[in-house]
Amino acid sequence: MGSVGHVTPQSMHFSEPLVLASGARLPEYTLVYETYGRLNAARDNAVLVCHALNASHHVAGTYEDDPKNVGWWDNLVGPGKPLDTDHFFVIGVNNPGSCFGSTGPASINPATGRRWGADFPVVTVEDWVDAQARLLDALGIEQLAAAIGGSLGGMQALSWTMRYPRRVRHSIAIATTPNLSAQNIAFNEVARRAIVTDPEFHDGHYYEHGTLPRRGLRVARMIGHITYLSDDVMAEKFGRQLRNAELAYSTQAIDFQIESYLRYQGEKFSEYFDANAYLLITRTLDYFDPARPHGGDLTRAFEAAAGNRFLIVSFTTDWRFSPERGREIVKALVDNRIDVSYAEIDAPHGHDAFLLDDPRYHGLLRAYFDRIVRDGPVAGSAGKGSLAVGQTEVS
Amino acid sequence: MGSVGHVTPQSMHFSEPLVLASGARLPEYTLVYETYGRLNAARDNAVLVCHALNASHHVAGTYEDDPKNVGWWDNLVGPGKPLDTDHFFVIGVNNPGSCFGSTGPASINPATGRRWGADFPVVTVEDWVDAQARLLDALGIEQLAAAIGGSLGGMQALSWTMRYPRRVRHSIAIATTPNLSAQNIAFNEVARRAIVTDPEFHDGHYYEHGTLPRRGLRVARMIGHITYLSDDVMAEKFGRQLRNAELAYSTQAIDFQIESYLRYQGEKFSEYFDANAYLLITRTLDYFDPARPHGGDLTRAFEAAAGNRFLIVSFTTDWRFSPERGREIVKALVDNRIDVSYAEIDAPHGHDAFLLDDPRYHGLLRAYFDRIVRDGPVAGSAGKGSLAVGQTEVS
Repeated sequence: MGSVGHVTPQSMHFSEPLVLASGARLPEYTLVYETYGRLNAARDNAVLVCHALNASHHVAGTYEDDPKNVGWWDNLVGPGKPLDTDHFFVIGVNNPGSCFGSTGPASINPATGRRWGADFPVVTVEDWVDAQARLLDALGIEQLAAAIGGSLGGMQALSWTMRYPRRVRHSIAIATTPNLSAQNIAFNEVARRAIVTDPEFHDGHYYEHGTLPRRGLRVARMIGHITYLSDDVMAEKFGRQLRNAELAYSTQAIDFQIESYLRYQGEKFSEYFDANAYLLITRTLDYFDPARPHGGDLTRAFEAAAGNRFLIVSFTTDWRFSPERGREIVKALVDNRIDVSYAEIDAPHGHDAFLLDDPRYHGLLRAYFDRIVRDGPVAGSAGKGSLAVGQTEVS
Repeated sequence: MGSVGHVTPQSMHFSEPLVLASGARLPEYTLVYETYGRLNAARDNAVLVCHALNASHHVAGTYEDDPKNVGWWDNLVGPGKPLDTDHFFVIGVNNPGSCFGSTGPASINPATGRRWGADFPVVTVEDWVDAQARLLDALGIEQLAAAIGGSLGGMQALSWTMRYPRRVRHSIAIATTPNLSAQNIAFNEVARRAIVTDPEFHDGHYYEHGTLPRRGLRVARMIGHITYLSDDVMAEKFGRQLRNAELAYSTQAIDFQIESYLRYQGEKFSEYFDANAYLLITRTLDYFDPARPHGGDLTRAFEAAAGNRFLIVSFTTDWRFSPERGREIVKALVDNRIDVSYAEIDAPHGHDAFLLDDPRYHGLLRAYFDRIVRDGPVAGSAGKGSLAVGQTEVS
């Protein structure tokens, strides 16, 4: 198993407006992306990796001038790795509204000549999938072998099958949910309020004020981090460990290691992530609800995906998007007699598990990608009647 | 069942310093308290109600000039109610460091002539119990029939048996834990950071600046509220209900009812609660860990309580202080052959359940208080050998 080595981000400009779910238009936009492996002659071995809240197009490898900047799913993607770049042409793309090079709130709004700031339109998972489809058009890829992602990335992998079912054969949706619960939305809302009420936010036009709502962003990230880890793994990693032998008897000093960890995570995040992008992307999460146009009926939402095949993966200790939510997706697929494999992986790490190199989890993904190779492009295009319904439990 | 009717808070000044766990001294202090029912001639029917984070001495009844201000545990305390003021003399006391009349950060520091602000010393559960014991001295009460509380109040009820085992017969500790988990501390820490990094905080001396760190306090309360409710009850009460028929496609507008609820709770709280008190009391929660002086051995911590009797109550959907944590207390008591009843109540409301009028929960408390009446003062003073070990499951 090797690394994809040094990689170079590329960018593609689109001058045709992107019409968004809100009715607004993104007049023009740039998408930054990376690719690993080679597109085969039949152009049918592409796998799109969809990123979650704070990740980007930089999925694997490193940059020649920044060797410590390793792609966020480098443990999964590379020659001989579960998503094997000797077989697949892997594409990572930064979604519009984010802050890693694709058009987002920090970009110039052509209508005003100023940065978009908080005026950047709210984008949905569906909007992202539309933008990704245009990138594929530009790359001459008619059909993906698979779309894969964890968390918010998993929502995109699902949305592909509803929006462009003929342009994707397999959907691999990990640690995800058919929609956010009230509790999920609540955490997002608190994070947004922390940012928006930071006096340095300036209604989202902090760029022009030479400030950044860092305090709000730190709090937002600390909240997020609590929900990414399981109670168990927090207990195991930090428990009630003190930083010093004695209590400080202070409300502001760091007494417990967990405090130190959270403050560090908040600090680090506030140095690289754009606050407006955080607001937007948490809203993207809140709004994802493919059953909504079907009166809340997820089964009907997946009717369009009759020709697709699915792998749904949940983690036992993920309390953000619990296995119960993953099984709702499976049920809707089974109701439609759609080919779905489901794995509920017994891992202690909570929601973050989808990013980690757990042997059972990666073994499962390896086996599924092997199957995608074996199935080839024909199986995925097969009619509804020929699809088997399967469920696999890994524990 | 009736109300205790109109009540009048009283206050008691203590000029003898209170030596705190930190080694600091509170040079002088006032405690505000309320009482309901009558102290009997034997002075042995007093029940101390210990308050949690944001509550006060105002446990039951209303004020003549503020009839809407109903005590926080009015559903429990009154004539004919489970904690029956026809039998018991009930005392509610506002703990020092809080913000409802007892000495706290908004009080004048006699050493400087200025408000304490963030210089108010960190107080622990043990410090509070010491202050409460002095109030009992002043009221001429040698021994409590019971100390009762939920959440942080439950910690005080437990601490009484370790600190003054001969001054209390029964301890009723509800929805509580022997110490905070890393996740519990993490939520407190994020709330504190939201307050402390609010520019209006002014190092805790906002009183002198004529400002209040309201933004931070709102965020802190929103975080708290998420942890008080169960995922289920949030789903049931709010789910993904929209405020309007259509999405606003905005990151700052209120789309979901849960957002409206949380913002309202944050706003309301920021109007009456003091930010320094919030910082202090979350620290009081973090620091509670009676096993710590015993090398983490909770069983040894409860050795002192051999002559006490306990009722421990947990709620199935309380994910803040889960039944698992309640059972740790029970185990330590059983290890010491101490008389303990345990109830795990199947209630949907999460941590907040301890404040609600659930028939099984209140029925249980009523039965336990009946037993306290039957036992009388003698049973509680009985030797270790005569105590039965009991466990009751209510579901």
